[in-house]
Amino acid sequence: MKELPIHIQLHPESNKTLYEQIYEYIRNEIRAGNLLQNEKLPSARFLAEYLQVSRTTVDMAYGQLVAEGYLEARPKRGYFVCAPDNLYEIKMQPPDTQLRRVTAEDQAVYPYDFSPNAIDMRFFPYATWKKITKNILVDAKSSMFALGEPQGDLELRTTICRYLHGSRGVNCEPEQIIIGAGNDFLLLLLEKILGRHIHVAMENPTYVRAYKIFRSFAYPVSFIPMDGNGIRVDALRKTDAQVAYVMPSHQYPTGVAIPIGRRMELLKWAVEEEGRYLIEDDYDSEFRYKGKPLPSLQASDTNGRVVYIGTFSKAIAPAIRISYMVLPYPLLEKYRKECSFFSSTVSRIDQTILNEFIRDGYFERYLNKMRKQYRMKHDFLMNEIRPLERYFSISGGNAGLHILMTDKRGRSEEELAASAEKMGVKVYCMGAFRMETDEKVSEPAAMILGYGALSVEEIREGIAILKKVWC
Amino acid sequence: MKELPIHIQLHPESNKTLYEQIYEYIRNEIRAGNLLQNEKLPSARFLAEYLQVSRTTVDMAYGQLVAEGYLEARPKRGYFVCAPDNLYEIKMQPPDTQLRRVTAEDQAVYPYDFSPNAIDMRFFPYATWKKITKNILVDAKSSMFALGEPQGDLELRTTICRYLHGSRGVNCEPEQIIIGAGNDFLLLLLEKILGRHIHVAMENPTYVRAYKIFRSFAYPVSFIPMDGNGIRVDALRKTDAQVAYVMPSHQYPTGVAIPIGRRMELLKWAVEEEGRYLIEDDYDSEFRYKGKPLPSLQASDTNGRVVYIGTFSKAIAPAIRISYMVLPYPLLEKYRKECSFFSSTVSRIDQTILNEFIRDGYFERYLNKMRKQYRMKHDFLMNEIRPLERYFSISGGNAGLHILMTDKRGRSEEELAASAEKMGVKVYCMGAFRMETDEKVSEPAAMILGYGALSVEEIREGIAILKKVWC
Repeated sequence: MKELPIHIQLHPESNKTLYEQIYEYIRNEIRAGNLLQNEKLPSARFLAEYLQVSRTTVDMAYGQLVAEGYLEARPKRGYFVCAPDNLYEIKMQPPDTQLRRVTAEDQAVYPYDFSPNAIDMRFFPYATWKKITKNILVDAKSSMFALGEPQGDLELRTTICRYLHGSRGVNCEPEQIIIGAGNDFLLLLLEKILGRHIHVAMENPTYVRAYKIFRSFAYPVSFIPMDGNGIRVDALRKTDAQVAYVMPSHQYPTGVAIPIGRRMELLKWAVEEEGRYLIEDDYDSEFRYKGKPLPSLQASDTNGRVVYIGTFSKAIAPAIRISYMVLPYPLLEKYRKECSFFSSTVSRIDQTILNEFIRDGYFERYLNKMRKQYRMKHDFLMNEIRPLERYFSISGGNAGLHILMTDKRGRSEEELAASAEKMGVKVYCMGAFRMETDEKVSEPAAMILGYGALSVEEIREGIAILKKVWC
Repeated sequence: MKELPIHIQLHPESNKTLYEQIYEYIRNEIRAGNLLQNEKLPSARFLAEYLQVSRTTVDMAYGQLVAEGYLEARPKRGYFVCAPDNLYEIKMQPPDTQLRRVTAEDQAVYPYDFSPNAIDMRFFPYATWKKITKNILVDAKSSMFALGEPQGDLELRTTICRYLHGSRGVNCEPEQIIIGAGNDFLLLLLEKILGRHIHVAMENPTYVRAYKIFRSFAYPVSFIPMDGNGIRVDALRKTDAQVAYVMPSHQYPTGVAIPIGRRMELLKWAVEEEGRYLIEDDYDSEFRYKGKPLPSLQASDTNGRVVYIGTFSKAIAPAIRISYMVLPYPLLEKYRKECSFFSSTVSRIDQTILNEFIRDGYFERYLNKMRKQYRMKHDFLMNEIRPLERYFSISGGNAGLHILMTDKRGRSEEELAASAEKMGVKVYCMGAFRMETDEKVSEPAAMILGYGALSVEEIREGIAILKKVWC
């Protein structure tokens, strides 16, 4: 009997199986270069007898080594080492920098945070949501766990279509709607539909996340100044922009609503050249305190030039990762041809829950309740803030969940924010939303105060502090 | 009393409120040009008396018209029409083409569909999933309905990290994991991390959806021929590719597993130049019928050159829109700097359900059950297919949910597919996965047979038909 090239010490008491011990021993011998290429291993039958283990155990170990490319089984001849010529030892490089873990805890917490993004979840009908979820899961067949249509389930698209028509005047068919897991995803998809190198115009100041997203597309972006009626179409015309991203019903962060005349100008701009589009981000249109909500810009578009985007994150809950995009027909056609292979990003279960929540009237009831809540907070805030009107002009308060306080005394935003923060009140600077352009305009300091998530008491106490530090 | 410019006929029995009727009448008069710019409207008090409605009703209508830009309220003077100069009548263009609605019904249904994508959902633990969901919702606080971290919840990332290490040998920290709603979304995000104009190499044949996605990025794509050990690194070296997209453990659709030597060659290629990466799509590695699953390519990467992507769509259910991407540190740093503003696409509720499903051992139990199921179907199929081995060589069957039948008689794939389809059996042609390259290689016909979703009876009957039509 020739010398066996393997000397395995098996440990029956180890928590590794015998098969694993054999496998690992041989693998390590090959890696270490102790078993060389083309070296023949003992037959499985022989090794099994030698080690006093079952034949199956050795077969499994050899099989695994063959599957992983360490051994080769040559028919009628046995097992041979096929250690690669290029067996390549590389060492782990520790990461250059210790990456900071980004968590919520990193951010300072203020007792009074007038965040313009936060919403009030205290009245969310958790019980209803749970009941719908439970009922859906009880009835759930396997189809519910299957992958849905790329655009989203037809039932939900039909429900959204009806809702958008009734509440926002949006004119569309369910086939024009694409449901996606959040606005960011829908914009990523829209990039693929619009194509490369699209010159985008944005209002200035604007929604910074959308700007970052366009920048990540390497789209050139022009910032268009606004006046009291919103984005200035005369300034837009001076750019080569092909697409304008606008928030016509309640601009973020200024709160300006574009009146009908300016809207018509915008639509006129869009039809003047082939391939021009308006992206309408209708992010918080559900909450309006004077009259019924403004109709959408899309409602006035009869030429298929508006891409309408909305979300349930604000009106229901941020966790509901469901947004919708209404494509005009020319872009829908491009989507169908070039992008419809992208799978849906929302599970059918979540789509079904949302569909029933809207269809059965719970959404409307919740919206009505929240409108009352937010209106109450809004009115309360406006009242509390009145003594500050000597120092600030107040605007943007007809809708949405935030107002604007523009300083009349020539103070800087940093100064105003810092003095408030020192006393535990977080307010937001308009400067963070203003984009630098060539023409240097010096704007008065404007502070953004969101009230969505604050209680009436918190609003009272927060404003009382602002009165002390700002007046 | 001067002539009133408005003559509204109110219909108290209409389903429209009086406020809406007044609002719509005036809006239409302005739109039609019957009320001209700067024309003064009667005071709200006067109109209310005239129409015998409450003052509030008129106030609401005027308020809405002001909000929409049709009227202007001049302090102390009253309401004036501010019909825009540019009021612009545009007509709806009907869409050029009647767009076909893309639904599942469009596709023909075959009694025996050997789809390589379909999976078996009969054993899915619906009851467990429902129970977890119910418990989570019972305990759900509002934080569950808040927007989570962009990378995904730390708990789930930690669980996935542990799972990937144990089952696939993946070496990573939870901070390297990004959770997203499906592989397509993760690739869209990866594009933003990698940047523009990245030259990608793909195996040929390959996963066509991934190719379409890269094409939608306008990335140049090179197709690299394969041999029995997978992608040919010598051919890869002849391209300018910076990134190679590979499926090392069970290539789709060939079923080839890359042995350790070739893996080392690939890793060597990646470290030879700055900025080279391998994207490892480990799409169905959970199912392997010989030995334990092959470790991932990432497991052998000690230099941070592998982006590892996997999904729960195949191992749990297609509706679970949760995939994960493990970024090596250099790319993680880029993500943190440039892309971490993209919101998470998966709701916290869904993340929590999945986390408990894995953490509490249900996932492993389900996987073990499905491994047995699929192995049983696999063995059954291999046995049934044996009589066809005179006509076909069988391969790719060590793992995954499909096998390959390569024709020995010089027939065409179209011919083989058509004769099967005529008898109600749907099989898939390798040609659909082969990408055209300059060197024209004539490959023998290869048919793909997936068995994941078929029952043993369906496999038997389907193969019996193939025997008749192919032999």
